[in-house]
Amino acid sequence: MMQDFKEIHHECGVFGIYGVENAAQYAYYALHSLQHRGQQGCGIVSTDSQGMHLHKGAGLVIEIFNKRNLAELTGNIALGHVRYPTTNVGGMENIQPFIFNHHTGNFAIAHNGNIINSAELRLYLERRGSLFQSSSDSELFGHLIKKERSEDHRIYNIMDALNMIEGAFSMIIMTPNRLYACRDKYGFHPLSIAKLGSGYVVASETCAFDAIGAEFIRDINPGEVISIDHHGIRSNDYSTFKRHRMCVMEYIYFARPDSDIEGCNVHSFRKLSGRLLYREHPVDADIVVGVPDSSLSAAMGYSEASGIPYEMGLLKNKYVGRTFIQPTQELRDKGVKMKLSPVRSIVSGKRIVLIDDSIVRGTTSRQIVRMLREAGATEVHVCIASPKYSYPCYYGVDTGTYDELIGSSHTTEQIREYIGADSLYYLSLDALYESSGRNMGKCELCTACFNGDYPTDLYNYTEDRLRHDKC
Amino acid sequence: MMQDFKEIHHECGVFGIYGVENAAQYAYYALHSLQHRGQQGCGIVSTDSQGMHLHKGAGLVIEIFNKRNLAELTGNIALGHVRYPTTNVGGMENIQPFIFNHHTGNFAIAHNGNIINSAELRLYLERRGSLFQSSSDSELFGHLIKKERSEDHRIYNIMDALNMIEGAFSMIIMTPNRLYACRDKYGFHPLSIAKLGSGYVVASETCAFDAIGAEFIRDINPGEVISIDHHGIRSNDYSTFKRHRMCVMEYIYFARPDSDIEGCNVHSFRKLSGRLLYREHPVDADIVVGVPDSSLSAAMGYSEASGIPYEMGLLKNKYVGRTFIQPTQELRDKGVKMKLSPVRSIVSGKRIVLIDDSIVRGTTSRQIVRMLREAGATEVHVCIASPKYSYPCYYGVDTGTYDELIGSSHTTEQIREYIGADSLYYLSLDALYESSGRNMGKCELCTACFNGDYPTDLYNYTEDRLRHDKC
Amino acid sequence: MMQDFKEIHHECGVFGIYGVENAAQYAYYALHSLQHRGQQGCGIVSTDSQGMHLHKGAGLVIEIFNKRNLAELTGNIALGHVRYPTTNVGGMENIQPFIFNHHTGNFAIAHNGNIINSAELRLYLERRGSLFQSSSDSELFGHLIKKERSEDHRIYNIMDALNMIEGAFSMIIMTPNRLYACRDKYGFHPLSIAKLGSGYVVASETCAFDAIGAEFIRDINPGEVISIDHHGIRSNDYSTFKRHRMCVMEYIYFARPDSDIEGCNVHSFRKLSGRLLYREHPVDADIVVGVPDSSLSAAMGYSEASGIPYEMGLLKNKYVGRTFIQPTQELRDKGVKMKLSPVRSIVSGKRIVLIDDSIVRGTTSRQIVRMLREAGATEVHVCIASPKYSYPCYYGVDTGTYDELIGSSHTTEQIREYIGADSLYYLSLDALYESSGRNMGKCELCTACFNGDYPTDLYNYTEDRLRHDKC
Amino acid sequence: MMQDFKEIHHECGVFGIYGVENAAQYAYYALHSLQHRGQQGCGIVSTDSQGMHLHKGAGLVIEIFNKRNLAELTGNIALGHVRYPTTNVGGMENIQPFIFNHHTGNFAIAHNGNIINSAELRLYLERRGSLFQSSSDSELFGHLIKKERSEDHRIYNIMDALNMIEGAFSMIIMTPNRLYACRDKYGFHPLSIAKLGSGYVVASETCAFDAIGAEFIRDINPGEVISIDHHGIRSNDYSTFKRHRMCVMEYIYFARPDSDIEGCNVHSFRKLSGRLLYREHPVDADIVVGVPDSSLSAAMGYSEASGIPYEMGLLKNKYVGRTFIQPTQELRDKGVKMKLSPVRSIVSGKRIVLIDDSIVRGTTSRQIVRMLREAGATEVHVCIASPKYSYPCYYGVDTGTYDELIGSSHTTEQIREYIGADSLYYLSLDALYESSGRNMGKCELCTACFNGDYPTDLYNYTEDRLRHDKC
Repeated sequence: MMQDFKEIHHECGVFGIYGVENAAQYAYYALHSLQHRGQQGCGIVSTDSQGMHLHKGAGLVIEIFNKRNLAELTGNIALGHVRYPTTNVGGMENIQPFIFNHHTGNFAIAHNGNIINSAELRLYLERRGSLFQSSSDSELFGHLIKKERSEDHRIYNIMDALNMIEGAFSMIIMTPNRLYACRDKYGFHPLSIAKLGSGYVVASETCAFDAIGAEFIRDINPGEVISIDHHGIRSNDYSTFKRHRMCVMEYIYFARPDSDIEGCNVHSFRKLSGRLLYREHPVDADIVVGVPDSSLSAAMGYSEASGIPYEMGLLKNKYVGRTFIQPTQELRDKGVKMKLSPVRSIVSGKRIVLIDDSIVRGTTSRQIVRMLREAGATEVHVCIASPKYSYPCYYGVDTGTYDELIGSSHTTEQIREYIGADSLYYLSLDALYESSGRNMGKCELCTACFNGDYPTDLYNYTEDRLRHDKC
Repeated sequence: MMQDFKEIHHECGVFGIYGVENAAQYAYYALHSLQHRGQQGCGIVSTDSQGMHLHKGAGLVIEIFNKRNLAELTGNIALGHVRYPTTNVGGMENIQPFIFNHHTGNFAIAHNGNIINSAELRLYLERRGSLFQSSSDSELFGHLIKKERSEDHRIYNIMDALNMIEGAFSMIIMTPNRLYACRDKYGFHPLSIAKLGSGYVVASETCAFDAIGAEFIRDINPGEVISIDHHGIRSNDYSTFKRHRMCVMEYIYFARPDSDIEGCNVHSFRKLSGRLLYREHPVDADIVVGVPDSSLSAAMGYSEASGIPYEMGLLKNKYVGRTFIQPTQELRDKGVKMKLSPVRSIVSGKRIVLIDDSIVRGTTSRQIVRMLREAGATEVHVCIASPKYSYPCYYGVDTGTYDELIGSSHTTEQIREYIGADSLYYLSLDALYESSGRNMGKCELCTACFNGDYPTDLYNYTEDRLRHDKC
Repeated sequence: MMQDFKEIHHECGVFGIYGVENAAQYAYYALHSLQHRGQQGCGIVSTDSQGMHLHKGAGLVIEIFNKRNLAELTGNIALGHVRYPTTNVGGMENIQPFIFNHHTGNFAIAHNGNIINSAELRLYLERRGSLFQSSSDSELFGHLIKKERSEDHRIYNIMDALNMIEGAFSMIIMTPNRLYACRDKYGFHPLSIAKLGSGYVVASETCAFDAIGAEFIRDINPGEVISIDHHGIRSNDYSTFKRHRMCVMEYIYFARPDSDIEGCNVHSFRKLSGRLLYREHPVDADIVVGVPDSSLSAAMGYSEASGIPYEMGLLKNKYVGRTFIQPTQELRDKGVKMKLSPVRSIVSGKRIVLIDDSIVRGTTSRQIVRMLREAGATEVHVCIASPKYSYPCYYGVDTGTYDELIGSSHTTEQIREYIGADSLYYLSLDALYESSGRNMGKCELCTACFNGDYPTDLYNYTEDRLRHDKC
Repeated sequence: MMQDFKEIHHECGVFGIYGVENAAQYAYYALHSLQHRGQQGCGIVSTDSQGMHLHKGAGLVIEIFNKRNLAELTGNIALGHVRYPTTNVGGMENIQPFIFNHHTGNFAIAHNGNIINSAELRLYLERRGSLFQSSSDSELFGHLIKKERSEDHRIYNIMDALNMIEGAFSMIIMTPNRLYACRDKYGFHPLSIAKLGSGYVVASETCAFDAIGAEFIRDINPGEVISIDHHGIRSNDYSTFKRHRMCVMEYIYFARPDSDIEGCNVHSFRKLSGRLLYREHPVDADIVVGVPDSSLSAAMGYSEASGIPYEMGLLKNKYVGRTFIQPTQELRDKGVKMKLSPVRSIVSGKRIVLIDDSIVRGTTSRQIVRMLREAGATEVHVCIASPKYSYPCYYGVDTGTYDELIGSSHTTEQIREYIGADSLYYLSLDALYESSGRNMGKCELCTACFNGDYPTDLYNYTEDRLRHDKC
């Protein structure tokens, strides 16, 4: 479940729970099931009559929480977050959730995504008296809510604030007696709500509901803010402008295969994309091999469609957390495999169709192809279950700048040569749409990374800000 | 990789390395790749001109070793072990490897398996002056080697000792300048040798070779003892009686899918068993679902043979080690899933063929079937990729006594009723043999757990000794 | 060095370092030497051209920092803090230092003490747009500095802010290229500056200088703000009103005996107070026993003055940190001693003069007297090396409300009876002054806890706010 | 309490408990109070109807034990050990206690001290069939008990074994229903027995009794073996040859000041030695300073006798365990003090009498004298509260070989010059005897390290064996 082998980083996960005894305990298991969305840090804040109780830190859920500190997070409402790994930006001050003390009532915020106009808003707010302790957009949003300094009508303050920010976000706000859950008006990243006993839970992915036995109710809509309190659920639309554009990489790479996004199961999406990949690019080979874990479903689909046997030609080494001793460069040079190893007896002497979900920088693909050849593969045909990744993402996905994206500067043939494959094929954008099985309702996909069609204004969002803390 | 969801416990793994600088570093990565064979404890002993250096403890490889204690294990020869979890027997005194100080030279031992006549030998040795500090067969074997008190001809002492023990064992012995690797004369459990630079490594499974970039040479033979020193490899047969009977559960359940055992890849074995399972028991259903992780290959085979789509209907929660906070019974009752969760959107409204590798006590299967029905499955047909498990194993596999094996006291129909399936089918023994692809050479399978055909004398090995420390 | 046996809690320590390579490394050792001032949490922030690097958490310095996270705190300027333990208020959001991001430049703050008018200032600031994430006065001060929103003249912003706060504080502010160190205008708590190589360090106590080999320059003055940058040290007085009132409990209880405060060594102060205690209250006894560790110096003084032998009649059990397993109540009832144990062979049959530094609630004294009697002491005369503690402290010392202070509601005779002593004597306030050896220059002592003479306006600081987070 | 600043290492501590519920819990607190006798490793074994339960490891008591592993050590009988630190010999295989499985009944052993003829006995036993897994004398003794292979009369087997070993040992043996506690016939190291509720405890030092609320009964005699079971206490003398020679370093350096050894309190012994030191060597000086912690009592005595004020001129930095980050050599060179720091304001301008307990190699004394001079001391007169340490100890104290002892090759004047003192004086052997206050009964002192008068045969115990594992 450690995704750091890929060059794309997951973009955080959020979880909220209302009206359930020992809420933080559920948050622990839910965050654990969302761990694939972020391994750098995590945190939980709970609330009860004594106030808000926070524990957060740098590391995996199982590393940061223990029985003692979890037991201190008392209360029936809780908010949790997992954060993606980056060495470039952000220290522990960016670990979420954030809590805010205010004479009109305390509150806490966690979100995932990226706010495009955060720099402008920060300057605006600093000039009005705000002082920030991190580069997190969650902190920014807390200040936006409070910018009017009015003491009541919180829902209107939140809706006003939501209308000021542009970009991608799924956000949960916790007050002493209420949860608010909201999504940007494009609905870039998933956020759903479920029932748990007499209470409610909100999560980035539905797999978190399954982990704790909650019953899925529905996805939160783009431009919607849900408030949950002792009256139950109420819905408000903070924007009439809505243009549903779900991040296609959620299906392709980020989400867990057992999650459903906008009514479409992730595993099913991937498998169908694999079938369509064969339809578009039928390769003559002996076996189909997927790059674990995210490309396994597509590989199965390709195998089913083609009749070419699906085989476990690559195995992912399991390891977790900070306690693992990384092999030195010397050991790696001598053949110690850190994350992926080829299964020699399966790939040796075989013509392989290698299914991968995407190529971002190309270095990983290059290593895998070489690895397979060294293990005896006679041919390696690389089929990518998505179009060519050519444009930077500004909505919360850390894939780097134009310079870092091999697809933005190289032709397919050049990429094929670079990664050393016998052939290289990409899935078409049409087929990608078809992979959703046309059951996403009115929801369209954000495919900016493939075709540069950015749904939002980009302001003066420059490349050097790509590495800023987004989550 | 945590296998404790199943009622069968893995039975330890061994690793030896000779003639490689920083040998213990390689042992760390190799043991990590063998972690699925035992999660209770682990240890590494290395040797150099300063003597033997040992570190071992209760926990996973990543929990027990850190940079500092690993760095203290200096030398070019090392021996490592991972131990399976049990709460019934054995404390930390049974954690391997064992080291022995002797005026004729120090040595260390690690093994996996179970020696049938250990109780008799212990009494015999205690009466000759031995004093044991554990219930481990490795310690027993150390005493057997030294029982003659002769100061030279160590290889003959080892071969004499090997001829005294009856049962299942793969064992590695380390001296200050040599490694010995040996298998019982039935070859119950795997042990292979590979080349690493100018040195050699020995491991329970070939996946350990891939993890560290070693090149497979061959399996060690039943009844063979290999000695590795500065002369290279030498082989001795300590017994003329040999009857190769590889434990069939190594293929079915224990080994990692990327390992090869006796020339047969484990994933391939399992996949073929799934194909044959369909041939014997074609079920009319909408999807094929495998119980992760060990039954996924068989499920793929069943799917390929039947044309019924293979779907990810069950997902395994990843968690590791001692730091994970186990959910309370109350939370479990409320739906917090510890290890497996059904993927509702995939299984709902579907007729399912559920592929599992085996049924030992039946409780797990019962839970899974119920889980799938609660998630909306309309039919659940259980197909087991092995025959009915009816006889206790005395050769190192902890599956319990006759009373605990549902297969030994219940008919197939009774088991079906107990687990709540719509139908229940087992693979035939013949098909199981066929699954090896007939490429295991002269190696036969030990199938005592299926048909009671125990290859060895059982002495007076009684049921109450089943829980004794075996590994 | 764990002070939690006493009913008085230490009130945090600060440390700053400028112009020294690997500044955070020195901060580690310096904070370790200040650990007695706070054991609940600690943190270090460093700065270099990459920005500010923060690590903080709940626990001892040795628990929170390890080689890896310390190595990430790069730069030649650093700021550190240790925080006192409380279970009543404040979670990890109050752990210092705080860092602030601002378009005019980032900065970080740590302080110890208590700001009397913080509630008023918070409300004022929130109404101007501030949003707080903790109840820490350091965060409050960051907002005060930025309240004018002017982009330059930082020193004037700081001085303005300093003039707005009333109370006790020793504060260090770090910017990307400068350290500011300042004390409240009463100089309640110590803060000194020293030279280290070509750089400078600032610390709550001089013992931190000795720990890292720095050379003491001078104490920072009340009402002074020092700025340290590549020009060296510059001094500004932000207030003309100054009335030096060093907290007398720093000498009596808080500081390490090897520290000098206002030119007066703490051990020497305590020893002289012990001598004067004998002059005022000569008791006829066999041995003098001090309550470790803070009362040992006074006990030595009493012994020297009286000629009654000083003996080690009480021993403090050493233990540290969160890993220590606290004995259950049952074990404590059965005699398991957690923190202090009497030395039977020394106290048995003896008439004891027990020297303690203070009585706050009386429960500890009561336990000690009982313990000594059970160990065979025939008489226990309690001599307190300070006057009767009768008034709550509002300046950063957590001793509780009037109700909790036995001295505010009980006569000396009632207290004697409660603690079970044969006699009870307090040192006079005059003698306490004399203990400083008259070498503190113009510095007077704050003795509000003894005589209710609070040097500052108390605003509407009510008892219920005593438990608020102060440090 | 970390003694590794000194060049002498403590030599382990033992603790046994019989007939008390949750025996291991008491062992935890008792071992914690004995931690000064050994910081390298520790272990506890308990026993109940389920068998023996062991946990041990390398580190401090608070590092090795946690609530979970301590809770697993069930039963009413337990045995514990703390082990001294050495980097030279012995890995984790030497950590005590040892447990032995035997068909006649399991047992466990822990001891401290050093058996002189262990090499001879090991060879003898190995030739009779013994096989050792460590270099520990506890393991050796287990084999000696079982050498006769008789199945009954355990007490006679133990007494026979005791008569075969020569040297220094305090040993506790635990069986499923009994504790045996025994001392060598010279009584080199302390071992006492106490009552705890309806049960009994045995410990190396009486401070362990105070820690858990046990009532001292008496010291175990040289040459005595005590057995404790449901009948109560029984005593046997295994040897008629007895010559009580308590290790004088126990009084001078090892034991905690609150412990009583042979009826003489350690603090009192040290204090009297300080008084006598003044009588023999009256120095004209301004202050008396003791080297913490072991020399503080002697310094107080010198001060009382001389009337020269005792001052806290040196302070010991508190730190513990493996988590402390050791300063690099570079930092140490720059003045970062690891263990001791001078209190400048106290020592500056002063003529100092520095009291230390002993000089072993001289390097520490040299550093301390230099430190004091750098802090401004005008004169440093070193008075050692014991005679010149000139002979290696073979009885369990790790002080090194003749070559390493500065006292064996240098005159007092040469040593004075080496350590840079203005004068250097040693206490006479007569005065040392007098320090015991003549209340040790018939117990004499082993002063071999001062005068070479080794009470036992030394066999062919050579210098190179000094570094062997003793404890």
